[in-house]
Amino acid sequence: MNYVKENLWQIEEVGFDSRYLGKTESIMALGNGYLGSRSATEEHYTTERRDTFVAGTFNKFAENEVSELPNIPDMWWMDFIINGEIFSLEKGITSNFSKRLNLKNGELIREFDWEFATIKLHFTFRRFVSKARRHYLSSFVTVENLTDIPISIQIRSGIDGQVTNSGSQHFHEGEKGLVNGKYIQMMPQTNESEIDFVFTIGHRLNAKNVSERIEMGRRQIFMNYFFDLPSNNSATIEKRMSVYTSIDNDISDHEISEIRETAISEMEALEVFSFEELLQESAEKWSEIWEKHPIEIETENFKDQLAIHFAKYHLHIMTPAHNEHMNIGAKGLSGEGYKGHTFWDTEIFMLPYFNFTHPEIAKSLVTYRYLGLDGAHKKARNNGYEGAQYPWEAANPTDGEVTPVWGAADIVTGQSTKIWSGFIEQHITSDVTFGVKQYIDVTGDQEFTEQKAYEILFDTAKFWGSRLEYNTEKDYYEIKDVIGPDEYKEHVNNNAYTNYTAHWNVTYALNLAKELKEHDPETFERLNQKLELDNVLADLARKVDKIFLPQPTDEGIIPQDDSYLSKKTIDLTKYKSKDGVDGLFHDYNLEQVNEMQITKQADVLLLLYLFEGLFPREMKLKNFEYYEPKTTHDSSLSLSTHAILSADLGKLDESYEFFEKACNIDMGEYMKSSDDGIHAGSLGGIWQMIVFGYGGVRMIDGKLRIEPHLPKAWNKLTYGFDYHGESITVVVMKEGFELTKEDNGNDVVFFSNGEAYTLKNKLSIL
Amino acid sequence: MNYVKENLWQIEEVGFDSRYLGKTESIMALGNGYLGSRSATEEHYTTERRDTFVAGTFNKFAENEVSELPNIPDMWWMDFIINGEIFSLEKGITSNFSKRLNLKNGELIREFDWEFATIKLHFTFRRFVSKARRHYLSSFVTVENLTDIPISIQIRSGIDGQVTNSGSQHFHEGEKGLVNGKYIQMMPQTNESEIDFVFTIGHRLNAKNVSERIEMGRRQIFMNYFFDLPSNNSATIEKRMSVYTSIDNDISDHEISEIRETAISEMEALEVFSFEELLQESAEKWSEIWEKHPIEIETENFKDQLAIHFAKYHLHIMTPAHNEHMNIGAKGLSGEGYKGHTFWDTEIFMLPYFNFTHPEIAKSLVTYRYLGLDGAHKKARNNGYEGAQYPWEAANPTDGEVTPVWGAADIVTGQSTKIWSGFIEQHITSDVTFGVKQYIDVTGDQEFTEQKAYEILFDTAKFWGSRLEYNTEKDYYEIKDVIGPDEYKEHVNNNAYTNYTAHWNVTYALNLAKELKEHDPETFERLNQKLELDNVLADLARKVDKIFLPQPTDEGIIPQDDSYLSKKTIDLTKYKSKDGVDGLFHDYNLEQVNEMQITKQADVLLLLYLFEGLFPREMKLKNFEYYEPKTTHDSSLSLSTHAILSADLGKLDESYEFFEKACNIDMGEYMKSSDDGIHAGSLGGIWQMIVFGYGGVRMIDGKLRIEPHLPKAWNKLTYGFDYHGESITVVVMKEGFELTKEDNGNDVVFFSNGEAYTLKNKLSIL
Repeated sequence: MNYVKENLWQIEEVGFDSRYLGKTESIMALGNGYLGSRSATEEHYTTERRDTFVAGTFNKFAENEVSELPNIPDMWWMDFIINGEIFSLEKGITSNFSKRLNLKNGELIREFDWEFATIKLHFTFRRFVSKARRHYLSSFVTVENLTDIPISIQIRSGIDGQVTNSGSQHFHEGEKGLVNGKYIQMMPQTNESEIDFVFTIGHRLNAKNVSERIEMGRRQIFMNYFFDLPSNNSATIEKRMSVYTSIDNDISDHEISEIRETAISEMEALEVFSFEELLQESAEKWSEIWEKHPIEIETENFKDQLAIHFAKYHLHIMTPAHNEHMNIGAKGLSGEGYKGHTFWDTEIFMLPYFNFTHPEIAKSLVTYRYLGLDGAHKKARNNGYEGAQYPWEAANPTDGEVTPVWGAADIVTGQSTKIWSGFIEQHITSDVTFGVKQYIDVTGDQEFTEQKAYEILFDTAKFWGSRLEYNTEKDYYEIKDVIGPDEYKEHVNNNAYTNYTAHWNVTYALNLAKELKEHDPETFERLNQKLELDNVLADLARKVDKIFLPQPTDEGIIPQDDSYLSKKTIDLTKYKSKDGVDGLFHDYNLEQVNEMQITKQADVLLLLYLFEGLFPREMKLKNFEYYEPKTTHDSSLSLSTHAILSADLGKLDESYEFFEKACNIDMGEYMKSSDDGIHAGSLGGIWQMIVFGYGGVRMIDGKLRIEPHLPKAWNKLTYGFDYHGESITVVVMKEGFELTKEDNGNDVVFFSNGEAYTLKNKLSIL
Repeated sequence: MNYVKENLWQIEEVGFDSRYLGKTESIMALGNGYLGSRSATEEHYTTERRDTFVAGTFNKFAENEVSELPNIPDMWWMDFIINGEIFSLEKGITSNFSKRLNLKNGELIREFDWEFATIKLHFTFRRFVSKARRHYLSSFVTVENLTDIPISIQIRSGIDGQVTNSGSQHFHEGEKGLVNGKYIQMMPQTNESEIDFVFTIGHRLNAKNVSERIEMGRRQIFMNYFFDLPSNNSATIEKRMSVYTSIDNDISDHEISEIRETAISEMEALEVFSFEELLQESAEKWSEIWEKHPIEIETENFKDQLAIHFAKYHLHIMTPAHNEHMNIGAKGLSGEGYKGHTFWDTEIFMLPYFNFTHPEIAKSLVTYRYLGLDGAHKKARNNGYEGAQYPWEAANPTDGEVTPVWGAADIVTGQSTKIWSGFIEQHITSDVTFGVKQYIDVTGDQEFTEQKAYEILFDTAKFWGSRLEYNTEKDYYEIKDVIGPDEYKEHVNNNAYTNYTAHWNVTYALNLAKELKEHDPETFERLNQKLELDNVLADLARKVDKIFLPQPTDEGIIPQDDSYLSKKTIDLTKYKSKDGVDGLFHDYNLEQVNEMQITKQADVLLLLYLFEGLFPREMKLKNFEYYEPKTTHDSSLSLSTHAILSADLGKLDESYEFFEKACNIDMGEYMKSSDDGIHAGSLGGIWQMIVFGYGGVRMIDGKLRIEPHLPKAWNKLTYGFDYHGESITVVVMKEGFELTKEDNGNDVVFFSNGEAYTLKNKLSIL
């Protein structure tokens, strides 16, 4: 990867290596939240993964599989047959190769010289997915003949519906054909969810004496263009594409014939615009994002600035902001990994960015959880519980649990391992509650609070009430047989993170009930009717003080679970230094790792960070020093938490090391880590490390706190956020910080190092 | 392609070109009738088509598709990662490349030197599909380090269930895992027909200090082997594979757990045998085929001899001789083309070979049609007819019609064209009857005749009786709106081939009824009960003499149909000389070709050949001279018919030209013609051209006729055949021919040039 100080909006790969296609396919993915596409090349390689997804179009390949985002037919495909030879960078000599993504406007450019036998051509590939029109995408290719002899060129370009999700085909083939003698259309339908798709393609060539021929195969339709490219001349082909589906919420008539019409009309209407103009239109939409609370870092290391551009770019292309029935996948829309499913990653890692900078998008994301109450009820019922138990993995909000049951092979037995998360990784329910609470605290969105948030907050507490198990011997309520955030440890009892967050969820509901009864009895009564709150609250009140909260040992260590501290320890240095994190599992299987004090990712530490108000600094420090060395960070969710917590603890050098590692999860030099898609949580983590970690922003018990502290390498940090409708900008210097707020709003009260401040327009704290 | 006089059992490709992988994948396909596999390379290329099929395992991907043979998970896959670089012949320098198939023992060998950076290796790949054990296949690879430095090698070998039929996935993923710490198993199931498959793989390495690692992905399971190959050393890997299914008729318990056991037991039992021994065992089975009626040609052109080896090899690997519920696909088991479906190709083109040389296999093929009566009834009923109307395309015998409804794009409109064959290409019914009649005439199989053939013969006649349409104006019965063998002409009335063969079918049934009533009234009565023959026959008797048989014009030309002769003609020279036959359709669409005197393939001429007893020589000659120039031979079924008919007509030079072209349909230099699979009918045609065309053998009206005539290039032809249980060898010289028959049988009566002969042991005719 090549990054340069001169362009803080560009990520670039120089030189081509077909072994590492997955890297740039993922980290240079394009999208607009409606659709996302890996940046697979126009020509084909055996090592490629050509995936494009439309958010929310979940489908189940078969009864015994879980629903996933189907990989839609590939429209980027263009074969170039040059003097009869299929162009591929694995043949001949490639020079001056650059593949680069402009994060500012979402344009992907790939260019190089290619020599093969007597051929020498310069290729330039440009493409974008429009941020201005969600259905539209486009590709523009220039081929230049660098020789003194004409070169014969055939371009085969169209749409390929033979692609699958690693072998699972989600589509019925559907109709396909030529429309108005000009546009190619293909109309497949998902086999189970019965969502219709309409793909439309038009081509524009700039070349002389072009002959053309249509070609149809099974699930494929192509145009072939034949021409001779004179010496020292160039030709261009523009491919204009659109995708519509029958669940689109921006069209009113979902009849397939109407959708086809809509797509054709749009194509026709756009004929008057050039590629450049349509790219420009999209770039303007991107500007709106970049103008909202830009982050500026004066740093010794320009990659820090690039990293936040990279993170925000991806956070926006992956987020289906247009539809509250959809949420963010753990790999965004950039790969088949995790099947497009939504995890706790949303609430804990990505939502904070939206809460603080795009509250309208955050609202859509939390509304998804409100719409998911039915699914959560279904899951609770299936497991013998009450209330709302959120699914570990979520697809359509009402689906309930969609975690697959079987995973990869166990190295010792060779058998597939059972994925227990869908059954027993139960902290997701309090994570969702936590996310909702943060949303309402940050935005002050009263309407959402009353209409939706309260219900979630009570209904999840109701679940926890039914989940608690009474231990007669110890006279307390405990939570046995779970997986905490540390997924190496399956079937543990009283995972600290789970128990503390469940306790918080219950306590919060009890307090809320008290407050509502007093100040808004009408709302309380409505919810009481719906959720039988009187009974639920009475039950919770009986139990809450007896919920077992794992207490610190004499050394001040909060036990991760009942058995963790009694397990043996090994030196993890060897595994922590390596690229990729599966080294450990070449030596041990999951069962063996289960029996050692090895932690995959922040677990107790995450608790200390998210609920920092509950724990004294000294305890945080001790636990950080105990657990970090035992943590492999074998989850992209781990490093950012450690970066923030160590920054909180004043360990700024250590924190900055975590920060840099965390930024490199996708952007770094390790070329295989992003194959299955980018790491959405980690990208949210980049923003959090900057704004929460170094910017010092936090919501604690409903109160805003700002305590910045810059790492050595940084001279100055500027960031901004929305808070209760107010737009605030913070400039952090080596010493002190300065806040400004637009003129016309309300005062903002916040805390800093124990002091309360009121921000009217401008405030300096030194 | 490279063929050498010194080895008449070898087809070879020298030099590698990834554009033409399809050619050798098809023509060097391996198989044993139970399974067939394209010879795709171990390593991957974007232009490959990796197909393996198990006969009869039809499945429907979706309700709106027709059933097809599913492409089963790929077991040949082996990646070689050499010094970290994925081996591919598109990289580096390849020399001494040879890919060759030994037709005699079914062994495929590929070898070459490969240089890349500091690497220089010699690779040898050998594989076979066992003819001795239908479930077993094996691969043996040798890698030799040709340099002075050690080379690091990783072999990734296993099974890939991500393959599809051009995007349609027929399998549920199923379980997979390691068994006994040694064998890989994968157990997918077809999604609609619910056939279980069990794939088992074992590896044997001969290399030093090998470390290994299992790897599982979605629908994939691999073993990885890592070792260093010392300078000037070699290593080998043997891959042992088996396939079982729950419809196998050689195992009794079809429980998946039992099948798994069976597969593992076989693998374990075979451990004592080497690759060579198992190949030898298979070769011995092949010997039995080669020893049965070998064809020897003394010719100026050694490729003639090679061609018949090639044809017989493929006829045997494609034919599911083990199961009468299965038949031969139009592409055998060598490609996705025609979905594994059975057409009239079986009866008219492949069955004759089996009738005359492997009557037990022929019996299985005609029994398939007997088992297909239910499907034929279903089709007749659906179309408003009675009796047995055979499907144009057949899968499982009871399925009835499985022709897809939509085909490739029309060049003018860009829309998919409707495939009418399943509806109106009705001559298939008399083709089946013709095949059955030939079978019983050649073999004298009395049991089949009584138990099955009579029923087919009557039931098809019953269909024709219901199909005939009365023309009041002309007072005759006609057959309107059909497609004859010439598929360019859709919706024609009174296609000569269709009307004549229907008339023959009806006439034959009437005669048979008369004979049975007289000599075997019991059988007649049984069939009468079953088929209501009294009514049917009365109806047929009323109609038979009024069936319209298109009569020759004054010029002696039998009109192909009512309108053909009035259509305009064009000069076809341009299209006939080209490789590939789609040139015509770049200039005209099917609708336009419909309006011209252009014929795809033998139509009237096929009639004159198959029912030669009905037409005088002079008429054949005139029609040959009229129709051949109008025929594009845009069907692999055309050339052999023309070769035989022209040989019959004494046009031996012309015939030999057709012969050579026909042999080259798959074996020739045109590298794209076999992409979708070999041309099964054309391969049967090769045998027919030799034995029927030049050997002069024919069954006419139930009588054996032998009238040989050699082309100029041939000095001598030796062939043999079975006839009514007798084994006959014929040696044809430039002048005259000699017949021998094994000692201990019955006399054989035959005709030759109007004379009747009786063959006891030996007979010379000069």
